[in-house]
Amino acid sequence: MLNIMIINGPNLNMLGKREPTIYGSQSFEEYLDILKEKYPDLNLSYFQSNVEGELINVIQETGFICDGIVLNAGAYTHTSLAIADAIRSINCPVVEVHISNVHKREEVRHHSFLSPACRGVILGFGMDSYRLALEALIQINQQRQDNEC
Amino acid sequence: MLNIMIINGPNLNMLGKREPTIYGSQSFEEYLDILKEKYPDLNLSYFQSNVEGELINVIQETGFICDGIVLNAGAYTHTSLAIADAIRSINCPVVEVHISNVHKREEVRHHSFLSPACRGVILGFGMDSYRLALEALIQINQQRQDNEC
Amino acid sequence: MLNIMIINGPNLNMLGKREPTIYGSQSFEEYLDILKEKYPDLNLSYFQSNVEGELINVIQETGFICDGIVLNAGAYTHTSLAIADAIRSINCPVVEVHISNVHKREEVRHHSFLSPACRGVILGFGMDSYRLALEALIQINQQRQDNEC
Amino acid sequence: MLNIMIINGPNLNMLGKREPTIYGSQSFEEYLDILKEKYPDLNLSYFQSNVEGELINVIQETGFICDGIVLNAGAYTHTSLAIADAIRSINCPVVEVHISNVHKREEVRHHSFLSPACRGVILGFGMDSYRLALEALIQINQQRQDNEC
Amino acid sequence: MLNIMIINGPNLNMLGKREPTIYGSQSFEEYLDILKEKYPDLNLSYFQSNVEGELINVIQETGFICDGIVLNAGAYTHTSLAIADAIRSINCPVVEVHISNVHKREEVRHHSFLSPACRGVILGFGMDSYRLALEALIQINQQRQDNEC
Amino acid sequence: MLNIMIINGPNLNMLGKREPTIYGSQSFEEYLDILKEKYPDLNLSYFQSNVEGELINVIQETGFICDGIVLNAGAYTHTSLAIADAIRSINCPVVEVHISNVHKREEVRHHSFLSPACRGVILGFGMDSYRLALEALIQINQQRQDNEC
Amino acid sequence: MLNIMIINGPNLNMLGKREPTIYGSQSFEEYLDILKEKYPDLNLSYFQSNVEGELINVIQETGFICDGIVLNAGAYTHTSLAIADAIRSINCPVVEVHISNVHKREEVRHHSFLSPACRGVILGFGMDSYRLALEALIQINQQRQDNEC
Amino acid sequence: MLNIMIINGPNLNMLGKREPTIYGSQSFEEYLDILKEKYPDLNLSYFQSNVEGELINVIQETGFICDGIVLNAGAYTHTSLAIADAIRSINCPVVEVHISNVHKREEVRHHSFLSPACRGVILGFGMDSYRLALEALIQINQQRQDNEC
Amino acid sequence: MLNIMIINGPNLNMLGKREPTIYGSQSFEEYLDILKEKYPDLNLSYFQSNVEGELINVIQETGFICDGIVLNAGAYTHTSLAIADAIRSINCPVVEVHISNVHKREEVRHHSFLSPACRGVILGFGMDSYRLALEALIQINQQRQDNEC
Amino acid sequence: MLNIMIINGPNLNMLGKREPTIYGSQSFEEYLDILKEKYPDLNLSYFQSNVEGELINVIQETGFICDGIVLNAGAYTHTSLAIADAIRSINCPVVEVHISNVHKREEVRHHSFLSPACRGVILGFGMDSYRLALEALIQINQQRQDNEC
Amino acid sequence: MLNIMIINGPNLNMLGKREPTIYGSQSFEEYLDILKEKYPDLNLSYFQSNVEGELINVIQETGFICDGIVLNAGAYTHTSLAIADAIRSINCPVVEVHISNVHKREEVRHHSFLSPACRGVILGFGMDSYRLALEALIQINQQRQDNEC
Amino acid sequence: MLNIMIINGPNLNMLGKREPTIYGSQSFEEYLDILKEKYPDLNLSYFQSNVEGELINVIQETGFICDGIVLNAGAYTHTSLAIADAIRSINCPVVEVHISNVHKREEVRHHSFLSPACRGVILGFGMDSYRLALEALIQINQQRQDNEC
Repeated sequence: MLNIMIINGPNLNMLGKREPTIYGSQSFEEYLDILKEKYPDLNLSYFQSNVEGELINVIQETGFICDGIVLNAGAYTHTSLAIADAIRSINCPVVEVHISNVHKREEVRHHSFLSPACRGVILGFGMDSYRLALEALIQINQQRQDNEC
Repeated sequence: MLNIMIINGPNLNMLGKREPTIYGSQSFEEYLDILKEKYPDLNLSYFQSNVEGELINVIQETGFICDGIVLNAGAYTHTSLAIADAIRSINCPVVEVHISNVHKREEVRHHSFLSPACRGVILGFGMDSYRLALEALIQINQQRQDNEC
Repeated sequence: MLNIMIINGPNLNMLGKREPTIYGSQSFEEYLDILKEKYPDLNLSYFQSNVEGELINVIQETGFICDGIVLNAGAYTHTSLAIADAIRSINCPVVEVHISNVHKREEVRHHSFLSPACRGVILGFGMDSYRLALEALIQINQQRQDNEC
Repeated sequence: MLNIMIINGPNLNMLGKREPTIYGSQSFEEYLDILKEKYPDLNLSYFQSNVEGELINVIQETGFICDGIVLNAGAYTHTSLAIADAIRSINCPVVEVHISNVHKREEVRHHSFLSPACRGVILGFGMDSYRLALEALIQINQQRQDNEC
Repeated sequence: MLNIMIINGPNLNMLGKREPTIYGSQSFEEYLDILKEKYPDLNLSYFQSNVEGELINVIQETGFICDGIVLNAGAYTHTSLAIADAIRSINCPVVEVHISNVHKREEVRHHSFLSPACRGVILGFGMDSYRLALEALIQINQQRQDNEC
Repeated sequence: MLNIMIINGPNLNMLGKREPTIYGSQSFEEYLDILKEKYPDLNLSYFQSNVEGELINVIQETGFICDGIVLNAGAYTHTSLAIADAIRSINCPVVEVHISNVHKREEVRHHSFLSPACRGVILGFGMDSYRLALEALIQINQQRQDNEC
Repeated sequence: MLNIMIINGPNLNMLGKREPTIYGSQSFEEYLDILKEKYPDLNLSYFQSNVEGELINVIQETGFICDGIVLNAGAYTHTSLAIADAIRSINCPVVEVHISNVHKREEVRHHSFLSPACRGVILGFGMDSYRLALEALIQINQQRQDNEC
Repeated sequence: MLNIMIINGPNLNMLGKREPTIYGSQSFEEYLDILKEKYPDLNLSYFQSNVEGELINVIQETGFICDGIVLNAGAYTHTSLAIADAIRSINCPVVEVHISNVHKREEVRHHSFLSPACRGVILGFGMDSYRLALEALIQINQQRQDNEC
Repeated sequence: MLNIMIINGPNLNMLGKREPTIYGSQSFEEYLDILKEKYPDLNLSYFQSNVEGELINVIQETGFICDGIVLNAGAYTHTSLAIADAIRSINCPVVEVHISNVHKREEVRHHSFLSPACRGVILGFGMDSYRLALEALIQINQQRQDNEC
Repeated sequence: MLNIMIINGPNLNMLGKREPTIYGSQSFEEYLDILKEKYPDLNLSYFQSNVEGELINVIQETGFICDGIVLNAGAYTHTSLAIADAIRSINCPVVEVHISNVHKREEVRHHSFLSPACRGVILGFGMDSYRLALEALIQINQQRQDNEC
Repeated sequence: MLNIMIINGPNLNMLGKREPTIYGSQSFEEYLDILKEKYPDLNLSYFQSNVEGELINVIQETGFICDGIVLNAGAYTHTSLAIADAIRSINCPVVEVHISNVHKREEVRHHSFLSPACRGVILGFGMDSYRLALEALIQINQQRQDNEC
Repeated sequence: MLNIMIINGPNLNMLGKREPTIYGSQSFEEYLDILKEKYPDLNLSYFQSNVEGELINVIQETGFICDGIVLNAGAYTHTSLAIADAIRSINCPVVEVHISNVHKREEVRHHSFLSPACRGVILGFGMDSYRLALEALIQINQQRQDNEC
């Protein structure tokens, strides 16, 4: 059974309240229940914070003991070198996700500090971006096991 | 009676101590008492933090229940896309204020992430910038009421 | 009684005709009458021109004999170093105002040649930006008197 | 019968005198007579000024009462946001023209403040650029009439 | 009788299918028939390709044997130095046209590699841009004949 | 049964030959067989070309008759506005994929012309990026059907 | 006897009033009298305007009938392509002067639109910059005469 | 006896775990013990946080009561104007240190917001950078005492 | 006997026709005959295309079976990342050549996508650049043989 | 009697040999004799070197013992911060001169490291630039004496 | 006994004469005597030149035979790639030092060509920067010896 | 018999000592002997200096009396406008060479001040770059003789 940590950054606690034309009307907690039902073989944990440093704390704490992190760092994606450093300091794979296609939005959102530090990036598929990240992590762990055998 | 939240960002707790030639020698708490006296019909609340994420928390918490926010985000004005996102996620008007005329200072302070997310900007009038923001919010709420009638 | 000069730059004579979704449907002359009524203790003068050099002429002529200037230089805000020089050459306080929140518009309007030369900036509050500028100038003159006593 | 305003900006009164290898040896007044002869069904008016603000004045004055403007703003093309604003404030179509191919000249002439505010652009055909602009305006007015029927 | 080559670049075969709010609902072939009818004295040929190199081939092949080229290189306008070189290598005049006003669209479309290599540019008049280019080429050839006499 | 088109751009025919440390030692055809086996309910077609214009041709031809396109445009991702235009001209969803994490490579590969035109982006998961794109397209079509019911 | 035109641009009518630490306390008219006394063999004319277009008018009018122009265009030096065009359109030599060393001031004053259009540049010597420009023009005219002989 | 505060920023709690080829395998706490032994006459305090605002809090709290601060702000060095403001608001000397030579790493690490606010910078000597900072602060305080005598 | 492939890109089929002041009046085929005569021990093949993708095809096809490629990619030198990728995907040495000294021409021709992917660069010697490239490849193969012995 | 040092930088020993269309056919030594004759009351010394450091040596050595330096640093004008530092380290006035109008030449010659360190700048008057610099220094020393009296 | 070379670049021979508010009033030779007294176990040599190439000569000559170099390259720090190459060509550690905090000065002094080539950087501590560099080199050599044992 | 001058710039005296993985282990003097043997009909001279100005001296001295210069200016290639001016001031052809492919190294080495002043450029072929430059100069002189006949 794989342990996966899902981490959401600033303002993603507002999902379902903020700009529904962009983010939909579902809160992340509601969506998480659907994911858990769909992937009963995954042990999914969840953390959200608006504080950059608390995101770093959780990345450091879980980055050595779980099998993968799904990270939507919100606006910190575009301004935080410190989170990128945290990702580089751990040894489980991190998948960067975004709900919206950030490349269709303002220019400041086209550059990500995190992408070069992450394993891969998935963006633009609404909430389904999180599910695809789980799919990616399952496959990465499968390959890791194959290599170990 | 209007409920107005005044939010100060990093280092503004040092007002009265830091670089008095720029910021004057009065602490913000002292000035707040003067404002309360001058505007007895306003219900003024106040919050200060040096932590970017706590400013976001307070914007989210008060942004649906008060009639306006006066925000001096200090140096985060120039680096925080996340606070701009928080402002966009709420539905009360936010007025950006600065004590000094930031355009007379170093170039990095000439760009604000917050301005395009705020209703308006007032800067350069010393402590009086806060009072002018209250004046602006009173007028905005007056117009809103007029439109509703 | 304070003498205040209000100066409007290019295309602001079109207020009420141009892009009403941005600027509203009121002409500036109509609004000026309201201001005069609201502030009977102020002696308000008004000048508008589409010619950059005429704006400079008026700034030079009134800048030594009145108690404050409210300046909305329209598009010259973003292209005129010469008006900035004129502001620096006089000795009464100048408040830069804009009707719309220029930071929500095209990038060329995000930079102002005038801001570093002015006392302060007020923008985004519609016509009310002018009234707030009057409030600011009243306070500035009050402080000046206090200091002189 | 269509009313068309032709407006020439700074230094275009020097046509026939200045740098004939670029602009030819014909004055604009001479060429205008040829145009009037060729298009007897058009009511052609003409204005030239070296003063940016006077160009704005004329655009504002004629922009609601004629069927189209042909504008060669000369060097102001590349420096005047205020003229672009004037074009946006009126409701007749404006065609930007240039005698020379500005893209073959210095880099500062490759960017036009006016192009995004105009209906279309015609450049590089010598004096014939003006005639092509008339052709374009005739067609635009034809289509407008067709749509109204 | 003048021989004119009209060359359309990538995606212009989609005219009438793609983004009709920008490009209208008419296919280019339909419009070409109208042009041929309007200008019976012109021998109009037409070529379209999505392949950059095929556009170059046709420019090279026709550039010595026809009296003018009307070129709408679509997106290659903004990325192809090779097409610009092809234009410079031939000796008939080339007119760059665009259906939409590219200066009202994304920034990448504001710069053209082709403009400095072409005789002139016509943009923003819908399909009529092509007709105006024909008018320009007729005049250019007329002047050439006049000079030869 | 969904019809999905997979399109590979320049040099991706070299997979299994080129820089195996980055791209692995498997040819795309071999991997495609695995995908077909794994997704028997999908009708997968495949096209590869080194010619930019041929990629555009295929996008145009299949973009109205299939249920989704998986596009790895290789180096054209970073230089081709014309492919982006082709994507915008069709009406099936397009998913941009990359085998490697392009943000870990040279700076020129950090910007994609295609991302703002595509539905979403998946990158960095090796060959598995293609499978995740199929997963995304299945979900998109499922939602489309749900909305239609 | 040489005819020399001295032209001053915006805000230079404020000399003696504005920022005396930079410009000194002498008005230009006072200094002009000294110059006339020192150079009795020169016929010195003088014009000042804050209006960009009026400067162009005077350059055009005097540029064919005098033996040299001394031009201090003030802030227009750094923003006016139109004045540069006017200088290029005439046939007497123009010397650009500045009272202060503009390269010690803000960065926007380091670039001059006029320098590449003028014969030479003299800056930083206070009022004496004007005298040195007269010296330069005397020498230029001397050489011209020598060449003609 | 001098009171010195050593402050470490984000991810420096990972020293000894993260990228040992860059940072070595020693934790900071272990190194601190060595420093205390070497400098028995210094009263060394230590604080680490991943939260930008908590670093500001500690700088403010200790900046008036100790004799010097050694600050390694990690990735915040390159993104935090707010920490720079905090340094400017206190009155004890601050020495910026880095373990690695940041100028050998990615370009984003070549610029420091803190350097212009600090007394001096020491970087590239591994853990020994901290010791050199102590040496610098001892000397600064020695000079201060000399000046007071 | 060495097998050498010479590949010419867009517009180089126009040699002898295009801009003879830059490229001379000799066609490449004529020059190739001279080269073959001069180097009877080399097996010289030749390919030219205006289509970027066809150049990639030929690089891929010959890059494993010949002893060196001489590549003049014309304008694609400055715009094609895809050709650079093709060069990196093969294992014979590639020498970039240019007839003219591209650094004396427009700025866009100063940057080459291909140079960092090629073994070396030779430019500015007219047709002789090709011969020097052959000389370089002979030496490279000689050294390779020496190393193998 | 004033002591004036004239210093010429790299390649100015080639005057009279190099690019005579730009620099004339006179060597500097020949011109120096003319200057000495014209200004018998000045004690003129002269130094030329192609070595940046030797120019610095001479500036340092003469900068405290002469009444002014005329400096034409040639190409080092645009690349040498070290010469600018040398100028700042001495206490006699330095006048920067150039024979040609550098602003008409390549862009790299439009920026001068020396201008902000010098008293003033004179450029574009051929050899006469040196004479005008002498005139300027005479006046500066005259004013200095006047102030001392 | 360690052999340490201290190398000073342009204008540092002016220490004690130039801008004493920045550099103090002590000459480097005076300070060197203090250093020798303080570190009797070090064999300190010293070289100063204003000539970039002579600095390179000395770096090359001493870089293989001493135990460390302390380098203050003055203004060449910001313009000399050649000195950086020289540092890379030798095998003793080099410490870059600056007397002033260059990050508080003009922007051109914020970038150092030398920093990425040096072991570490120490700046802003006045003359004490040199002593700290000696401390750093002693420690580096100590560790080297420890590793060898 | 042709007289050829080979000039090497800074740090090239370290060839065989510095970074052998980039430059090989052969000193230039050793290689020069091989060249002399291979080209007995050439009169080869050689000069090396680390001093920019001495390189200029030698270019000036030999540039009128030899038949060609082979110049590897090392790091000065990328920073010296003065050497470029020296090349422009002489009348023999100069070939710029580099041992390594500078376009594979740091970005600062991608731009050459010298290339636009030289006849041609050869880079990336190790020591053989010098031989190829000789080949190029032989051919250039051959053509010159052919033209003279």
